[in-house]
This record gives sequence, structure tokens and C-alpha cells, in this order.
Amino acid sequence: MQKHLRLEDLASFDRFTRANIINSLSGFKSASLIGTVNKNGQPNLAIFSNIVHIGADPALVGFLNRPLDAAPHTLSNIQETGSYTINHIIADIFPQAHQSSAKYPADISEFEATGLTPVYHEGIIAPFVAESHVQYSLELKQIIPIELNGTFFVIGAIQDIFYPEEIQEEDGFLALEKAGSICSLGTSAYYETKRLGKLAYAKP
Amino acid sequence: MQKHLRLEDLASFDRFTRANIINSLSGFKSASLIGTVNKNGQPNLAIFSNIVHIGADPALVGFLNRPLDAAPHTLSNIQETGSYTINHIIADIFPQAHQSSAKYPADISEFEATGLTPVYHEGIIAPFVAESHVQYSLELKQIIPIELNGTFFVIGAIQDIFYPEEIQEEDGFLALEKAGSICSLGTSAYYETKRLGKLAYAKP
Repeated sequence: MQKHLRLEDLASFDRFTRANIINSLSGFKSASLIGTVNKNGQPNLAIFSNIVHIGADPALVGFLNRPLDAAPHTLSNIQETGSYTINHIIADIFPQAHQSSAKYPADISEFEATGLTPVYHEGIIAPFVAESHVQYSLELKQIIPIELNGTFFVIGAIQDIFYPEEIQEEDGFLALEKAGSICSLGTSAYYETKRLGKLAYAKP
Repeated sequence: MQKHLRLEDLASFDRFTRANIINSLSGFKSASLIGTVNKNGQPNLAIFSNIVHIGADPALVGFLNRPLDAAPHTLSNIQETGSYTINHIIADIFPQAHQSSAKYPADISEFEATGLTPVYHEGIIAPFVAESHVQYSLELKQIIPIELNGTFFVIGAIQDIFYPEEIQEEDGFLALEKAGSICSLGTSAYYETKRLGKLAYAKP
């Protein structure tokens, strides 16, 4: 049976129910961990799913950061160092990745708290997640404050990309399911994927 | 074997290979169709995957629109009417949904060109996709031009939501896999999902 919720219905729910509806409504997302360090070298790791492709040339990726009081560390570290990494979550680590969303104090590294392993590559300040099979580093380009609700749209330029060679198809496409990358839904659910098909460039 | 691509390697690829790498790198996305009409009532339908949850209260969703010369109609229709719908793609219609990405002239409705069915709900200007099981309408709130590459980040407030009642869990969460909603990767691949788990709110 089809349900119809109106704007005024949404207002009638408690905030958790409302958040669960709205968070899941916009669909499956890229389940990723963002690694950063502050100016003292203290590492930070946080789970993000609201990640978009902005363009290929220049290669730009954006993510949505919650308001500063809810999620301060990733954004301030990126502002301090200009550097961050995005690491795909695989099925083996999704409970640990989810745990990184807990509100730890600034002096606690979520790597230590969750048991995930930081790994550093030469010339890149921010840490990667060793357990992740597809990883890339970014250089901060722009932070756009969203005045409607105090969030931030953060845009970075892709610098270095690491992935298992065998997942790449002839046209360049990265078959992420072969690297074990998963997706997420809402704030709490994680999914593996199975390919239905890959289609040619559409023409009228 | 792990492959490492540097920024300078990316520049060495042809534009299609480069686009396929970068488009897929950012991960699985929400495979959705955006329905609009222009001021004369001419409907338009286009596939979008770069969709983010911005906030639950107010309920805001953002999407990334390519530069105007590549994707003019959805954006201009939203500017003219302030109204649009987002409709989840299901497995049965992914080839038709993909076909909506072809560059049709402004006077051709992608509904007619692809065989998808427009459906109108009382009080909502923009058309929904009848074949889609999860649909919502939005009111334009803000268009943010991304000067780095000529794209646009479009923010709307959720107005009306339609979904099969049986997919909703006790906490409000919409189990989209039960509605057949799929996800996409890159510009051309489509995936169904299988849940690995749903976790409690994380605490330190």
C-alpha cells in the first residue's frame, strides 16, 4: 500500500524517526572513511556517505559535512592541512567504520578507538585506511557554507589514487564490487552490491 | 596488485577513460530520475546520481547538475517552476532510465522517448515517474554555482513523499531494497543491493 507523507506529517514525528526517514529517502550512498590529521599530526577518521562526483577534468569530489558542533574535527583538520583521504569501506570493516561516527574527544584517534589501521604514503600528509582496497587523496579547493542549515559542502581535487589493478575494466571503469567496496543507506545500514548491467553511452 | 595513479597520470588518459575512472572512484550512488516541467508544461526527465542528504530538519536534499551546455533542461525548468521530483530507479527500468541521459532537444519529452510514464499528483507541478516505487517532490531553495568547473549544486526542501508502506521499519528507516530501488556506479553501471547489517547509533 502506498503511503503519502506531507511536509506537515514530517513535523509530527520525533526527531529520530524524522531523521531516519529523510536520511534513507535520498538513496544508497558511497560508504567511505575520511582520514585527516591536525597541525600537530594527531590523526582523525570519520565515516561519510554524502559524497558526489563533481567533475573529471579537473577531477573534483565533494562531500557534505554536518554542522560544526556535530562534526568539527574532519573539517578543521582539512582547513589546517589542506589534505584528506577518502577510503572505501569493505564488508569486513563496516562495524568498525560505523563506530568512527561516535563522538570521541579531539585527542582520541578514531583509528585507535575502532582498531582500523592508519597507513601513510610518501608525500601525502593525511592517513589512509590500510583495510580499504580503494583509496584516494585530495587537496582542498573550496568550502561552501550552506546557510540553510549550517552544513558545509567541501570540494577537493583528487591527487593520488590507489586500487587493485584487476578491478579496472578496459574503458577505465573501476568495478568497485570486485574490490569489496560497499554502500550505505541512512545513518546505519550497510549493503553489498550486485551488478545488473553496464550500458553504452546513450544517444537519442 | 595495487595500482597507484598520480595526478599527472590522469592527464595522460583520453577524456573518456579519465571520466570513467574518476566517475566510478567516488563510489556507489543513488540512481534517480528527476522530473520537471517548463513554464509551458512541457515535461522533462533526466537521470541523476550525485544526490546528497543535507539535513533532516528542515528536510533538505542536494544534487549536482553538470554545466549548462551539457545539461540545461532540468535546471532551467526548476528555475522556472521552483518544483521538481526525485524518483528512485528500479531494476525493471534501468535501461530506460539510462536512455534519459541522451541529449534530446528541448521539445522532446524524455518520458515519451524512453517509454516511462509521467504521473501527476494534485498540487504538485512536476511529474513523477509511475514505474518508480519511492518518489518525493521538492521545492527549490538554493542554486550554488561551483565556479571551479561550471557545475551547480541544487538544494531543495522535501515536500511530499510516496513509498510502499511495507518497506518502513519501526525507527522510520526506509528499507529501499524492499522497494526495488537500485544504485549506480560511474556513468553507466547499475546495481541491486543486499543488506549486510543495520547498526545502532554509535557511542564512544
